[in-house]
Amino acid sequence: MAPSVQPSSSPLRTSEGDEKYANVKWEELGFALTPTDHMYVAKCRQGESFSQGKIVPYGDISISPCSPILNYGQGLFEGLKAYRTEDDRIRIFRPDQNALRMQTGADRLCMTPPSVELFVEAVKQTVAANKKWVPPPGKGALYVRPLLIGSGAILGVAPAPEYTFLIYASPVGDYHKVSTGLNLKVDHKYHRAHSGGTGGVKSCTNYAPVVKSMVEAKSSGFSDVLFLDAATGRNIEEVSTCNIFIVKGNIVSTPPTSGTILPGVTRKSMIELARDIGYQVQERDVSVEELLEAEEVFCTGTAVVVKAVETVTFHDKKVKYRTGEAALSTKVHSMLTSIQIGLVEDTKGWMVEIDRCQG
Amino acid sequence: MAPSVQPSSSPLRTSEGDEKYANVKWEELGFALTPTDHMYVAKCRQGESFSQGKIVPYGDISISPCSPILNYGQGLFEGLKAYRTEDDRIRIFRPDQNALRMQTGADRLCMTPPSVELFVEAVKQTVAANKKWVPPPGKGALYVRPLLIGSGAILGVAPAPEYTFLIYASPVGDYHKVSTGLNLKVDHKYHRAHSGGTGGVKSCTNYAPVVKSMVEAKSSGFSDVLFLDAATGRNIEEVSTCNIFIVKGNIVSTPPTSGTILPGVTRKSMIELARDIGYQVQERDVSVEELLEAEEVFCTGTAVVVKAVETVTFHDKKVKYRTGEAALSTKVHSMLTSIQIGLVEDTKGWMVEIDRCQG
Ligand SMILES: Cc1ncc(COP(=O)(O)O)c(C=O)c1O
Ligand SMILES: Cc1ncc(COP(=O)(O)O)c(C=O)c1O
Repeated sequence: MAPSVQPSSSPLRTSEGDEKYANVKWEELGFALTPTDHMYVAKCRQGESFSQGKIVPYGDISISPCSPILNYGQGLFEGLKAYRTEDDRIRIFRPDQNALRMQTGADRLCMTPPSVELFVEAVKQTVAANKKWVPPPGKGALYVRPLLIGSGAILGVAPAPEYTFLIYASPVGDYHKVSTGLNLKVDHKYHRAHSGGTGGVKSCTNYAPVVKSMVEAKSSGFSDVLFLDAATGRNIEEVSTCNIFIVKGNIVSTPPTSGTILPGVTRKSMIELARDIGYQVQERDVSVEELLEAEEVFCTGTAVVVKAVETVTFHDKKVKYRTGEAALSTKVHSMLTSIQIGLVEDTKGWMVEIDRCQG
Repeated sequence: MAPSVQPSSSPLRTSEGDEKYANVKWEELGFALTPTDHMYVAKCRQGESFSQGKIVPYGDISISPCSPILNYGQGLFEGLKAYRTEDDRIRIFRPDQNALRMQTGADRLCMTPPSVELFVEAVKQTVAANKKWVPPPGKGALYVRPLLIGSGAILGVAPAPEYTFLIYASPVGDYHKVSTGLNLKVDHKYHRAHSGGTGGVKSCTNYAPVVKSMVEAKSSGFSDVLFLDAATGRNIEEVSTCNIFIVKGNIVSTPPTSGTILPGVTRKSMIELARDIGYQVQERDVSVEELLEAEEVFCTGTAVVVKAVETVTFHDKKVKYRTGEAALSTKVHSMLTSIQIGLVEDTKGWMVEIDRCQG
């Protein structure tokens, strides 16, 4: 994925106060960076509390070469989306869940996190400051990326003396270009996480290590990689940036959140929605054999939303699954996105509207 | 470890060209940051080659909030030392080894690394530019920290479009304050690495995840943590920032470099030195039982050099080992440091002198 920056020949119209939208080709959006006008930045000494940060112009940040984020991977990120409704309200999907996950991650990496209230307020401010970049209804979403990084200088391996909480945003369209479904490769060489590690939190340290596996799989024509547990190599865990579900009859199964997979916000929401429509959902170990015998497989995540898996390849074996109209994934995708873009009422209290006066 | 910066009341004398030393209290040096005058910076597009960088004043760097080092842990670091000899030459310990290790790491994390020649030349330039900060003979060393980070902006999990190779330095003294030996705690809760992960390279992603374990151990009075393998939990791997050796009779054993521990430059040198004086050195799995039954245990690393382990605590069991004059660690420590500080001739070609004309 190459970074996509607006060409300078198409000047942005955001500086013109009365325009509703930034000058983006909404139909062409993929999951690439389209820098927006503003970002949010707050700093805090270790052990103290974050207080209200500032909305500043989007741009490079200044950081010590001796900071733990640059030297030791002391960083967490989050990812969530803001959607525009037909009646032009802008709403964010479950930001409190990302705030809570950042707190769990901060505890694991010995960092000082923002409070849930401050996190949610900061996300709202960031979205409000960039509201011209929230795509028209149905054309995508504003992807919001909060970062918590160890920014204070320290030479040895130890918690940073200072933390930076930063939020930037980018309008995005589909994460994967494929239409029918993903073609996943089961990875039997690399592992993503191990017990007693950081697989259960959104630590930056879980991502660079999987890039090689992703690059290798993509160069062989796969959409993404499915990782197995490092302990036994027998059970499926998750895809590089999304959770996985298998369907057989009335039973939907997904690996448990016991420390080696990320507890996805979409995963949690999906479990609720599937139960709402009468499916039995089991959070438990799922073996590769079971995966290969499933009727349907799908992935969930903020970036992919809900995406059918069309094929899984394990060594020389390639299995094809149900996709399309008859698939549960199609049904739950529609249920979820209808709530997100406001086509149906949000009876669950998942959507948080940005204050109209902001931004 | 709090960052140690020279108080502003003791102005540095480095700007005065004829002074030999910076204004540092050499006797008080520990392993903390004392910023020096200069750092080295080079940039390179993905897949191209690094060309000669620049020596610039030490200070904060400017980086995209959307860079893989800040979001996904795409970073490697190295650590090596420059020593001053009695006859005032400044020499660096085995920089080619660190250069090679950075290349292995770059391959694992899909980064573009500097060539070995460029790496070594850059380290020499950095040391030369900061030569007033190289402690007097016997008072410590100039710790040199090369970083290779994914600095170009990209939204998704993928290799960065641009890399920054940066080197900074800090004079340091002893890593651990303890005199006799380290008191290690065997960690049976957290793991450092897993097969198919990044434990065998100096990826930043291996470090923030162990901070919690280190902090917990230090708060209980231990010097550091000894990790067990994630697969079986039965074999010892390494300490948070150094390798481990056990001694029994004439046999010195150390865990093999099969992907989950860092192939330490000091470890490699130590194996050679121990063989030179007639010990049999075995690189093989070492169980906790064997550790507890060893006569002597010691650690090796750039920061610790060679350090005796006085005690190891495993659950409720605490074992004490030989330290002091009779210990092999004392002997090999002296052999190694004699080469490093130039008390004995460097017959192995380990020391690389910085060009006198530089800096
Ligand atoms: C490894 C991994 N698993 C799963 C997910 C899905 O989590 P969420 O639904 O909260 O986006 C993500 C994040 O997007 C992820 O990075
Ligand atoms: C995890 C780990 N093990 C071992 C070592 C020792 O390696 P070296 O002797 O090259 O410094 C280090 C680095 O200092 C390290 O970070």
